[in-house]
Amino acid sequence: MELSSYMKEKKRIIDRYLEEELPLENQNPSIVHRSIRYSVLNGGKRIRPILTMMVAELLGQDYKKVLPAAAGIELIHTFSLVHDDLPCMDDDDYRRGKLTNHKVFGEAMAILTGDALLVMGLDFICRNAQIEGVKKDSVVEVVQNILEMLGTQKMLGGQVDDISWHNQKNNADFIEDIYSRKTSALICASLKTGALLLKASKKQIEALETYGEKIGLAFQIIDDIIDLQEDKKIDDKPTYPVIFGVKKSEEVAHQYCNQAKESISLFGGKAQLFYELADFVVSRKK
Amino acid sequence: MELSSYMKEKKRIIDRYLEEELPLENQNPSIVHRSIRYSVLNGGKRIRPILTMMVAELLGQDYKKVLPAAAGIELIHTFSLVHDDLPCMDDDDYRRGKLTNHKVFGEAMAILTGDALLVMGLDFICRNAQIEGVKKDSVVEVVQNILEMLGTQKMLGGQVDDISWHNQKNNADFIEDIYSRKTSALICASLKTGALLLKASKKQIEALETYGEKIGLAFQIIDDIIDLQEDKKIDDKPTYPVIFGVKKSEEVAHQYCNQAKESISLFGGKAQLFYELADFVVSRKK
Repeated sequence: MELSSYMKEKKRIIDRYLEEELPLENQNPSIVHRSIRYSVLNGGKRIRPILTMMVAELLGQDYKKVLPAAAGIELIHTFSLVHDDLPCMDDDDYRRGKLTNHKVFGEAMAILTGDALLVMGLDFICRNAQIEGVKKDSVVEVVQNILEMLGTQKMLGGQVDDISWHNQKNNADFIEDIYSRKTSALICASLKTGALLLKASKKQIEALETYGEKIGLAFQIIDDIIDLQEDKKIDDKPTYPVIFGVKKSEEVAHQYCNQAKESISLFGGKAQLFYELADFVVSRKK
Repeated sequence: MELSSYMKEKKRIIDRYLEEELPLENQNPSIVHRSIRYSVLNGGKRIRPILTMMVAELLGQDYKKVLPAAAGIELIHTFSLVHDDLPCMDDDDYRRGKLTNHKVFGEAMAILTGDALLVMGLDFICRNAQIEGVKKDSVVEVVQNILEMLGTQKMLGGQVDDISWHNQKNNADFIEDIYSRKTSALICASLKTGALLLKASKKQIEALETYGEKIGLAFQIIDDIIDLQEDKKIDDKPTYPVIFGVKKSEEVAHQYCNQAKESISLFGGKAQLFYELADFVVSRKK
């Protein structure tokens, strides 16, 4: 199957799962459930959960074995977006053409919504322990890996440095380090979640982690190019294209794309979708 | 051993563990680690982790078997305090005589610090899986229980209703329901964590949960009496003593204290410290 139809199909599956499994809007306290559904069911690309399902199929297994965990990762990703958009952080009014959570529900509810999404996302991941053929101790490993990828050495630490960038050296290494922690970490966790739940080999896990690290960097560089070209408010915050220009940034993103593809050569032709996804990451226009 | 010296000893143990296990202030990104240590190492009473250790000893086991999880629960408690104190929530400037986190580190860092404390707290709990004699599948159960106690049906949902109390009926049932979710839920989780990790019987677990529910309610009523008497800013927010007066509130707290003690009668004399702790909760003056 071609990547674009594969992604469309898997996006539909994950959207339906989220639609059904998230608390309904009329369930008390209804305001926070409305707020959660507003931010989660918003037409996102679902790249992270799709990656988790792709790993299951790469390993020759049914994607349903990792579906709750995949959905949980999407909730955790949404937690990070809702908190990052807050006035005291990036102060964003719009996300995907819709008002951001705090613009609709207010700051206090946006903070609590993010907290609840993190809690609920981890709960979805734990639910994966109920699936036949999944061992409970692999679920502990998955939870620990995700917590590590979220912690102050990774995603949250990246956000800490990102909001205090005025005090930092703005060179390529520093920016890549932030990209790695803010973006690659959770992408790696998406891949590793599928791999740990379905008992991939150590070599396979390492390959997928390198792949995730590289497409995460490429993804974030392209994201910043798109933001720059759409002329979004970016203050003077240094991003790759702001410092190095669009052309050089695109070159670097393509290098990471190629490194990503090389890193998973051990899977051979079975990894075809992963190669295509790496190309998609650097060629996307929005 | 008498309760007060028991609590002092266990507080020292938990404080030392936190002191040693939290990232050091000079570890990057140092600002968030300074902020975490500021809010955690602040002279708290450590009632929740002490309860977890008390359960271990009640079951005839070494408290060390539950120490990481106990410490994790204290971090999660601290997460809730740091977020609750934010300007857009309860807007508190002081906690235990010290400036609140956001007054020292700013709002953005306080939000990230809370997020990081929740992540780190759950990670501490997962670490408990490494302890000899603790099964990994009981750790999954513990994590799931804590996530349930934090979720929108419990602690976070209680906070949602608490900040939107203007729209609510302010009667005893409603206030008790908020107390139950905001305070009792995590106290129950502290007790149940010890019980699940050390394979208590279903009956024992139920007894401890009832005990936790009741001392949680008593604890929160007394807390509100203390706040009222210290004349803290409480706007017109309805609390038990504001609506029913101090005398009636004290009576209700004592009823809950007695119900708490009755609920654990199956443990007999071995639960002596639990009886004393229930009395301590309603007799404390700060």
